[in-house]
Amino acid sequence: MDNVKTAIVGASGYSGEELVRLLLNHPHAELSAVTSRQYAGKTVAEIFPRFASHPVARKLKFTEPDVWDLSKAADVIFLALPHGVAAEYAMGLMEKEKRVIDLSADFRLNNADTYLEFYGHEHPAPHLLAEAVYGLPEIYADEIRGARLIASPGCYPTSILLPTIPLLKAGLVKPNGIIADSLSGVSGAGRKAEIPYLFAECNESMRPYGVPKHRHLSEIEQELSIAANTDVTMQFTPHLIPVNRGILTTLYLAPAKHFNSTKEADAIDAKIRECYRTTYSDSGFVRILPPGSLPDTKNVVGTNYVEIAWRIDIRTGRLIVMSAEDNIVKGASGQAVQSLNLMCGFPETAGLL
Amino acid sequence: MDNVKTAIVGASGYSGEELVRLLLNHPHAELSAVTSRQYAGKTVAEIFPRFASHPVARKLKFTEPDVWDLSKAADVIFLALPHGVAAEYAMGLMEKEKRVIDLSADFRLNNADTYLEFYGHEHPAPHLLAEAVYGLPEIYADEIRGARLIASPGCYPTSILLPTIPLLKAGLVKPNGIIADSLSGVSGAGRKAEIPYLFAECNESMRPYGVPKHRHLSEIEQELSIAANTDVTMQFTPHLIPVNRGILTTLYLAPAKHFNSTKEADAIDAKIRECYRTTYSDSGFVRILPPGSLPDTKNVVGTNYVEIAWRIDIRTGRLIVMSAEDNIVKGASGQAVQSLNLMCGFPETAGLL
Amino acid sequence: MDNVKTAIVGASGYSGEELVRLLLNHPHAELSAVTSRQYAGKTVAEIFPRFASHPVARKLKFTEPDVWDLSKAADVIFLALPHGVAAEYAMGLMEKEKRVIDLSADFRLNNADTYLEFYGHEHPAPHLLAEAVYGLPEIYADEIRGARLIASPGCYPTSILLPTIPLLKAGLVKPNGIIADSLSGVSGAGRKAEIPYLFAECNESMRPYGVPKHRHLSEIEQELSIAANTDVTMQFTPHLIPVNRGILTTLYLAPAKHFNSTKEADAIDAKIRECYRTTYSDSGFVRILPPGSLPDTKNVVGTNYVEIAWRIDIRTGRLIVMSAEDNIVKGASGQAVQSLNLMCGFPETAGLL
Amino acid sequence: MDNVKTAIVGASGYSGEELVRLLLNHPHAELSAVTSRQYAGKTVAEIFPRFASHPVARKLKFTEPDVWDLSKAADVIFLALPHGVAAEYAMGLMEKEKRVIDLSADFRLNNADTYLEFYGHEHPAPHLLAEAVYGLPEIYADEIRGARLIASPGCYPTSILLPTIPLLKAGLVKPNGIIADSLSGVSGAGRKAEIPYLFAECNESMRPYGVPKHRHLSEIEQELSIAANTDVTMQFTPHLIPVNRGILTTLYLAPAKHFNSTKEADAIDAKIRECYRTTYSDSGFVRILPPGSLPDTKNVVGTNYVEIAWRIDIRTGRLIVMSAEDNIVKGASGQAVQSLNLMCGFPETAGLL
Repeated sequence: MDNVKTAIVGASGYSGEELVRLLLNHPHAELSAVTSRQYAGKTVAEIFPRFASHPVARKLKFTEPDVWDLSKAADVIFLALPHGVAAEYAMGLMEKEKRVIDLSADFRLNNADTYLEFYGHEHPAPHLLAEAVYGLPEIYADEIRGARLIASPGCYPTSILLPTIPLLKAGLVKPNGIIADSLSGVSGAGRKAEIPYLFAECNESMRPYGVPKHRHLSEIEQELSIAANTDVTMQFTPHLIPVNRGILTTLYLAPAKHFNSTKEADAIDAKIRECYRTTYSDSGFVRILPPGSLPDTKNVVGTNYVEIAWRIDIRTGRLIVMSAEDNIVKGASGQAVQSLNLMCGFPETAGLL
Repeated sequence: MDNVKTAIVGASGYSGEELVRLLLNHPHAELSAVTSRQYAGKTVAEIFPRFASHPVARKLKFTEPDVWDLSKAADVIFLALPHGVAAEYAMGLMEKEKRVIDLSADFRLNNADTYLEFYGHEHPAPHLLAEAVYGLPEIYADEIRGARLIASPGCYPTSILLPTIPLLKAGLVKPNGIIADSLSGVSGAGRKAEIPYLFAECNESMRPYGVPKHRHLSEIEQELSIAANTDVTMQFTPHLIPVNRGILTTLYLAPAKHFNSTKEADAIDAKIRECYRTTYSDSGFVRILPPGSLPDTKNVVGTNYVEIAWRIDIRTGRLIVMSAEDNIVKGASGQAVQSLNLMCGFPETAGLL
Repeated sequence: MDNVKTAIVGASGYSGEELVRLLLNHPHAELSAVTSRQYAGKTVAEIFPRFASHPVARKLKFTEPDVWDLSKAADVIFLALPHGVAAEYAMGLMEKEKRVIDLSADFRLNNADTYLEFYGHEHPAPHLLAEAVYGLPEIYADEIRGARLIASPGCYPTSILLPTIPLLKAGLVKPNGIIADSLSGVSGAGRKAEIPYLFAECNESMRPYGVPKHRHLSEIEQELSIAANTDVTMQFTPHLIPVNRGILTTLYLAPAKHFNSTKEADAIDAKIRECYRTTYSDSGFVRILPPGSLPDTKNVVGTNYVEIAWRIDIRTGRLIVMSAEDNIVKGASGQAVQSLNLMCGFPETAGLL
Repeated sequence: MDNVKTAIVGASGYSGEELVRLLLNHPHAELSAVTSRQYAGKTVAEIFPRFASHPVARKLKFTEPDVWDLSKAADVIFLALPHGVAAEYAMGLMEKEKRVIDLSADFRLNNADTYLEFYGHEHPAPHLLAEAVYGLPEIYADEIRGARLIASPGCYPTSILLPTIPLLKAGLVKPNGIIADSLSGVSGAGRKAEIPYLFAECNESMRPYGVPKHRHLSEIEQELSIAANTDVTMQFTPHLIPVNRGILTTLYLAPAKHFNSTKEADAIDAKIRECYRTTYSDSGFVRILPPGSLPDTKNVVGTNYVEIAWRIDIRTGRLIVMSAEDNIVKGASGQAVQSLNLMCGFPETAGLL
């Protein structure tokens, strides 16, 4: 198996740094270029002392982002850029016949109008929307394998879609009335010098934000609609929590089948377990918890795993599903590397265990 | 205004310590006795170095809890004890004609059967349930003024009831389908030496617990049912978050009136604002946030205030209400002192600003 | 006792916000003006939701800083500005016969040359250096009472000077070889949007900085030299620690008298205790801990207290003295209010307990 | 290279859990047995959900610790037990011809009298002290290779010895007057259910402890004395800091050669750099920082690396050396695996990068 040459555009943020970590240690990938306007000319080791003992980090220097240089340096290019900017690079790189894994939101929507509604400006490359594959490997493995352009989903969508899609596909829950209440670590806000994300503003603070129409609703609803085969409109409330890493999502769902007794509830519970088992038994990264356990982000932080558990509430008739993941690994860079593995024919878990 | 003599039974936990702080600095109360089996014989200053500069803390010693001694030392006794134990002391002290403010769950339910269902054992003093007043001053001020036994509500109920009761009373939201998703600081687990609450177990962790039937549901549903004048069954999911203090609750409610347009949504929004304004305009501690703001626990930690904000989601038809409070102040000891103030004819905010 | 009218210039940072809190609740002071270029036109309640229930905070608006306006609005003006900028305002306000309490480093040094050495530019108002009083109330109470210009010391100097000055004055420790190893909460870096102070950069991080010649050494050495009546050059290493508030300083000192036995060590220990007792017995805010205790910032956070403890090490012959304080209260704004109290003839602890 | 069979006795604490992690992923080791009285009968996956996706963790069950069973299951046994208890197992296992890597303090001292002085009881196996090798691989690699019993050093000693030993050996610093001021994350206190280590007691707290005669001084002084070839008595002040992981040590040393000018200081600086370069150039885990950088625990947390930097202070004549490490990896379990690698002839970094 030949090594694939990879590059990261915008490697100075948290997702970029995590991609550096994963690619430096990937058994079948080589990190050939990293760009950052801010750090151009410095080595990876200088900027990320954490990797300073890695020989590649000591040699590899950040460069200004340039499509031509990137296309010469690498075969697969990761874009860890703000939305809007990412699309520009994607276009240029695809013209050079490169494969692109975009961690921004730019190619996650199938519909340019929805993009305009949620992001407030015209899509910069609508002609690529049809080709882009939504890079959720547990759902779209086959499409990812052959893709030239991956729209790698972010942390909130991943934490909501992985537990919900199988249930919708199996018809076990109703497509309407879905609520996702999510808690995110502060790295989710990016490495941006803004006062609300200072230590002394976040520590000992818990706060909702972006209520009620967060941008990422657009892609979540798109994917849930596909799974349910009907339009899904849902509620999503993100909260900022003083941890570095992690997403904890609590989902409120309605079982498709009404139940009145513990016995009926147990039957639904068994079907849900079977549904998850079937969907994720071959999955390297989705962990369906045993009956007595509940997710805890500390069990997944630093890893590409997702924990999922659920409870049926016989008093309210609801199904509560909870998931935990690392927002920067499974919620960003680990997921992107998982797509890389599929695209290149590597084992799906390569460099991620 | 004569000072009232007060005592705290079980003063070594977080609520007890906060009561000590509040009563040491209360303009009309005197702290005459504090009990703790563990610390009997030591001064308050020795155990709580934070108060070591207060003359009373330097003299006052913890004693073994004894009903006879307490009844001689104080007129109003606060019970900061585990449920079950509190009722025993309440009975004894009331026989001595003392007024009791109980911070445990022992007298919060009107119905001994519900107690048995949720707490798993017979109520130790069912004859007192009818007399006990649910000590939520914003709702039961008049009853509290004349009460001999206050069942002071805890952190989760307070964070849910204060935003929801006015809306139910005004018929602005439906009584069914209510969901409360709550985040609590670790002090809510008490000063108990248990591994799950160690620093290294909680820090960098986010986790749900007690899903789906948390004990405090019983009192929340009781009070919501009274407000709605119909039986309310609701969903409640608590989460443990690595902060010392604070509760952040996100409520998912259904407006009673259907709406289809922004204009109709705005009309409902205005009615909600008016409802809160009417209910809480005289309240010293409930802060209805201006339209652009959302609650943040850091704005209320260390205070007796509650922040409330809401958003109507025209996409889903739902009303999202969010509240923030300090779990140990408004969610425990500050609230208890607020009841003390009402019972003794002091200004409601005495010692709490 | 008439209320004094006060103003805060630069009220948007952490020290400024804490001054707002203290002055809003001060029994003898009125907060008449607050300035902030950034927030001009907004009310204090809008910017600091924590104070939104205070009637003054709801009315008082931030203004652009203007010497003429300030001189009309207030009698005592607090400057919570960066060094260099503060001196400009101090000059203007003193020309208007106003009393000034400056929280910056601008007037803490007696010598303009030392200022140039440590701050890298000429002092903007060297003629005021002689008049300025170093606002450490436990040491300079008399001078503060009559002062027109207070140079209020910051967090590190306070944590080092209060434990060390009495021992030097009493000749109990040698003036040479002093080491101060200090730990600071992140609020000490100010409310500045800079990447190193983001939550995800500080949380789970411990790091030294400014080694070996931190700016504040200049004022610390100046004050220790005065106390020792000889030139003192010392070692100071600050560290950034993931807490919001607090300074913990560990001092390594050499007892003046050699000792060889536990008995001799005990005698020195007793003299140190007596020295602290004599110096601080009338002090409202310095807490000399009992023999078995060690300082903990959590005992002083949110207060104007300083905890001090020490140990004599018979193995090494050294004296280790440890202090804890809140960097924003005793280390900044509380200390400034303490000076205000002395200047205005109020009880020294007014508004600070 | 055949895999070596390993076992962990006392695998339920933080060091034990980290050993599990490292050995599960070690390319040349097999984890054959884990013991825990508390968890006997449960699988590793059940107790440590973090490892639940690893096939060995799903099968391997905790057992009661039994020397006979352990000796059958494994060739190298790690002891992650309290001191005193560890020695008992070491004796039994060595009688069975097993190699033992002890993470406790039981075999770190060469002298049973010093053990008695610092640990307060007779050494349980003094006859093994001469054979035990102090498992600091950067210093004792050769001895470790041939050892049957490794006394693997803990977090504080490692953070002090690695930066200091080379300087003492080279005669660059004086052996007297050494001060180590250390900051430790809370995991250093172990997974013990004790109130001082609860989240709400540690968060927003900074505190010294064990002043002035911490137990680990005994082994630190022993090793420094060997390096200096003279008796070393030093000062050591540990502090508890609210992070999960990490040790940050600041050392105050006296250069052996007096210096009066920047030029002379620079010459000493160059010698120190050369000394570290020579000592650690082949080391896989010691990272000598470039001139402009200072250590930060966040750069090493989760890794087996140690960061070292220093500054010469021309004002005080002192050398300040700072180190950062992960207290559970390089300060405990990673270091123990490093010894395993040496003992078994594996690459020293196997399973640790």
